[in-house]
Amino acid sequence: MDNDSLKTMSWRERLYVIIFFTNTPAGKRFDTWLLVIILASLVVVMFDSIASFNERHGELLTNLEWAFTAIFAVEYLVRIYTHPEPRKYIFSFYGAVDLLSVLPAFIALLFPDAQYLLVVRIVRMLRIFRVLKLTPYLSQANFLLVALQGSRQKIIVFLLSVTTLIIVYGTLMYVIEGPSNGFTSIPMSIYWAVVTLTTVGFGDIVPHTPLGKALATVVMITGYSIIAVPTGIFTAELANAMRQDSLRHACPTCDKLTHEPNAAFCSRCGTQLFERPDRGAPT
Amino acid sequence: MDNDSLKTMSWRERLYVIIFFTNTPAGKRFDTWLLVIILASLVVVMFDSIASFNERHGELLTNLEWAFTAIFAVEYLVRIYTHPEPRKYIFSFYGAVDLLSVLPAFIALLFPDAQYLLVVRIVRMLRIFRVLKLTPYLSQANFLLVALQGSRQKIIVFLLSVTTLIIVYGTLMYVIEGPSNGFTSIPMSIYWAVVTLTTVGFGDIVPHTPLGKALATVVMITGYSIIAVPTGIFTAELANAMRQDSLRHACPTCDKLTHEPNAAFCSRCGTQLFERPDRGAPT
Amino acid sequence: MDNDSLKTMSWRERLYVIIFFTNTPAGKRFDTWLLVIILASLVVVMFDSIASFNERHGELLTNLEWAFTAIFAVEYLVRIYTHPEPRKYIFSFYGAVDLLSVLPAFIALLFPDAQYLLVVRIVRMLRIFRVLKLTPYLSQANFLLVALQGSRQKIIVFLLSVTTLIIVYGTLMYVIEGPSNGFTSIPMSIYWAVVTLTTVGFGDIVPHTPLGKALATVVMITGYSIIAVPTGIFTAELANAMRQDSLRHACPTCDKLTHEPNAAFCSRCGTQLFERPDRGAPT
Amino acid sequence: MDNDSLKTMSWRERLYVIIFFTNTPAGKRFDTWLLVIILASLVVVMFDSIASFNERHGELLTNLEWAFTAIFAVEYLVRIYTHPEPRKYIFSFYGAVDLLSVLPAFIALLFPDAQYLLVVRIVRMLRIFRVLKLTPYLSQANFLLVALQGSRQKIIVFLLSVTTLIIVYGTLMYVIEGPSNGFTSIPMSIYWAVVTLTTVGFGDIVPHTPLGKALATVVMITGYSIIAVPTGIFTAELANAMRQDSLRHACPTCDKLTHEPNAAFCSRCGTQLFERPDRGAPT
Repeated sequence: MDNDSLKTMSWRERLYVIIFFTNTPAGKRFDTWLLVIILASLVVVMFDSIASFNERHGELLTNLEWAFTAIFAVEYLVRIYTHPEPRKYIFSFYGAVDLLSVLPAFIALLFPDAQYLLVVRIVRMLRIFRVLKLTPYLSQANFLLVALQGSRQKIIVFLLSVTTLIIVYGTLMYVIEGPSNGFTSIPMSIYWAVVTLTTVGFGDIVPHTPLGKALATVVMITGYSIIAVPTGIFTAELANAMRQDSLRHACPTCDKLTHEPNAAFCSRCGTQLFERPDRGAPT
Repeated sequence: MDNDSLKTMSWRERLYVIIFFTNTPAGKRFDTWLLVIILASLVVVMFDSIASFNERHGELLTNLEWAFTAIFAVEYLVRIYTHPEPRKYIFSFYGAVDLLSVLPAFIALLFPDAQYLLVVRIVRMLRIFRVLKLTPYLSQANFLLVALQGSRQKIIVFLLSVTTLIIVYGTLMYVIEGPSNGFTSIPMSIYWAVVTLTTVGFGDIVPHTPLGKALATVVMITGYSIIAVPTGIFTAELANAMRQDSLRHACPTCDKLTHEPNAAFCSRCGTQLFERPDRGAPT
Repeated sequence: MDNDSLKTMSWRERLYVIIFFTNTPAGKRFDTWLLVIILASLVVVMFDSIASFNERHGELLTNLEWAFTAIFAVEYLVRIYTHPEPRKYIFSFYGAVDLLSVLPAFIALLFPDAQYLLVVRIVRMLRIFRVLKLTPYLSQANFLLVALQGSRQKIIVFLLSVTTLIIVYGTLMYVIEGPSNGFTSIPMSIYWAVVTLTTVGFGDIVPHTPLGKALATVVMITGYSIIAVPTGIFTAELANAMRQDSLRHACPTCDKLTHEPNAAFCSRCGTQLFERPDRGAPT
Repeated sequence: MDNDSLKTMSWRERLYVIIFFTNTPAGKRFDTWLLVIILASLVVVMFDSIASFNERHGELLTNLEWAFTAIFAVEYLVRIYTHPEPRKYIFSFYGAVDLLSVLPAFIALLFPDAQYLLVVRIVRMLRIFRVLKLTPYLSQANFLLVALQGSRQKIIVFLLSVTTLIIVYGTLMYVIEGPSNGFTSIPMSIYWAVVTLTTVGFGDIVPHTPLGKALATVVMITGYSIIAVPTGIFTAELANAMRQDSLRHACPTCDKLTHEPNAAFCSRCGTQLFERPDRGAPT
């Protein structure tokens, strides 16, 4: 879409194209600025959560927060105003994210010194979900999602099997070590099993009995070995997708796009794919 | 299997089909309910293990436990009654699992305040093995097992090599660090070697001497590098299985075995691979 | 080799075949027993290192140790006696391992209550290297070594790059955190960098300053991402080896064994690999 | 390049070839010596940072440091003198590295007992960047960089997605656990999320509330599963590169591009791919 076609539009249509699309120079500029503002607002939220910083520069942070909230509020209202079907936008994923970027700040700013400190603190932090405003910039992640989707069923089965394994390991550990060694309950032991099987290993709970250590060894070796499974599933799926992609050479007769690397004939219509001097005769 | 053929069966046969198979609407409903009850009973066992919860709601948990045990006991008896060859079911894997789901609860419920607390506690926790009742729901994990089975021998060899490595590393660490630094015995040092090589890293035992740290570095780099081996084995096996699967259909003219998915003509000799209404015409 | 050909041999030749090869029933039985004894002797060494066990059952362990040492000594002498070229065996890898299985035990048993306790303790533990007597049983690990050898150069380059990275990260961390936060020297900081980059994460040394935590984040993300490299190298190499293997179908004219999946002609001598009715003509 | 052609050059040209290239015997010797000196100087820097060693052998270390700095300074000046375009060398990557190897040592040696201890300490440690002088020796890492470059865009998208995930997880954890459980601020919680998602798991900050542990479980399972993504991307890219590489040589008759390694005849049309003394005869 070029600038000329933009000029023939109404003011509102033009704003719509600039705000919702990125294929015009103005749209690109708008997107870049929005990205910068989102990142800046995230930085402010983070610094706001640091106690020492909050005490010293509280007022500055509050003012900045007001500014960002105002900008996002204006952006939200303009998006609703310019969209051809406002209702559709409001109830879309990005509409919800845009509302979520404004709402917590408003609520928190309205009750700056409220007694309901904990609730306000939680609501204030929800401002971090502005990070989701970045998702359109990750549109290239699509191909990864496609590959993940292709292997989704296998990965779900894998995760369910791992869950079963973790429950069994966790309970055995609870029986072996018991509350006196930090394994205070089955859910706690299952938490330990997850920490160990995923090879995270915090070390906040560790086995103390020889038998517990033996079982921990089994859990660790299991975790170390079966990480091969999701990796294998995803790699095979991705390699498959990439091979399909690299085999793409169209048939001149029918519109079949992909053929084997050394196919001499189109595998759908039988058309010879390219000329050969001495057809198939051995020298 | 439709509802009509179900109606011509005897009452007992009908129950057999509903309970043991999932291809009737009634069978599906039965399976869904069983799944819900199993998960609920697992939740009860977990909450039962949390001391504070157990104290406050002990009676409720005991009653729920009685209910679940009764349901599983009835299920077990009905399965035995309806199965054409009860003996075969009883001694099958699922028969054993179904018995195991009932037995510990019965034993534990019969001795609720016994002095043999530890034994009872252990037995009570065996109820968690009800999770194995979920295995039929994981039937799609079969293909993963097939791939694992194909690479089984290689993975066993890998694990044996790793075991040898771990014993050598563990003993060297015991010699270098010694009991004063937490490496109290060779089994303990081997436990440390497993924790380190699998990149879990609890941190309950760590090297303190420079030489011990140098060896730990070697162990960690080893673990970080050789995780490539099980992953590589499984990925190659799975990629192979997926390729084989997607290509298998022979040409009737030449003996070319593999073609692209949806190939209508052999890509070597041009023979049509199967009849189509409008032959060769692009769709 | 069958039992008949065994009978025509001299007593010494027969022993040689039984001890050094596994293709006779007697040889297999010998190997199985040796395996059991090696494993038993490893268990004894491990229990010997547990202080409480050593105190209570010290005499039993010493006696068992004498027995195992005697068996391995006899085995070693018989191997030397029966081998056609004793010198060659003695200086081979397995000859050295067999000697190593006997020597430490002899030295340690000769000085059971020596004052040179530390040295003796170290020597005693060298008995664990009997585990290397198991290596012939791991002969199937060869194919893994072949794949590792194929990717050896790439993995060395990878490890050298990682080493450079670790030195830089470690030193930066030493400068940022300094001795007061546990990063007492550059080697210590490099040890921390290894612990972190390999995702082991003991937690014995952790960054305390915000800048140190930021750098730690970079190190962790690096380690999490570049584990893809050795895995990728090994997987690609193994997949390649397996594909080569699956393509093996011999040429009738020359002895070339492997061809492409849909090769019509031998790629070395040009012989047509199989008959085709209508050569290359599209239908 | 042989020694004869070296002799016809001027003294300065000869030095240029020896210092900047490795394809003469003298050049190889120069490179080997330089490698040894670089490694030795790195060892000195490391020992210099160990407090106890520095106290006892401070003078020796200072003298060695003077020697290495002198050598590198001479090397730097000779490189500038012999290079045909000195300016180009000085502003190249390796020129900067070579200057960086000399500068910090000079600065630090000029102020050995300065009061500005901290600054000097930092500057002194910059000597470790001499490790970058090793990069030319890692020239074989190029192919890894090529594969990484091919998958760069995908890996960046992956890292950005992971970053978004980490910010969301970290903030949720901050809200759930709060400052009283060690999650003192959002940046701190994000640091924890990185430690957990990358499966490092230091254990310096761990969740204490049941809800926090539940979320930690989700983070760990996420980290354990999505490590498949970079591995899959890189493996597929590398496997692709290796396949392309091993097959590339076109047939002169038909336009078939890829053949097996060492193929003498085109596997499609049977044309001889290159001349051989005894054509077609099997060896």
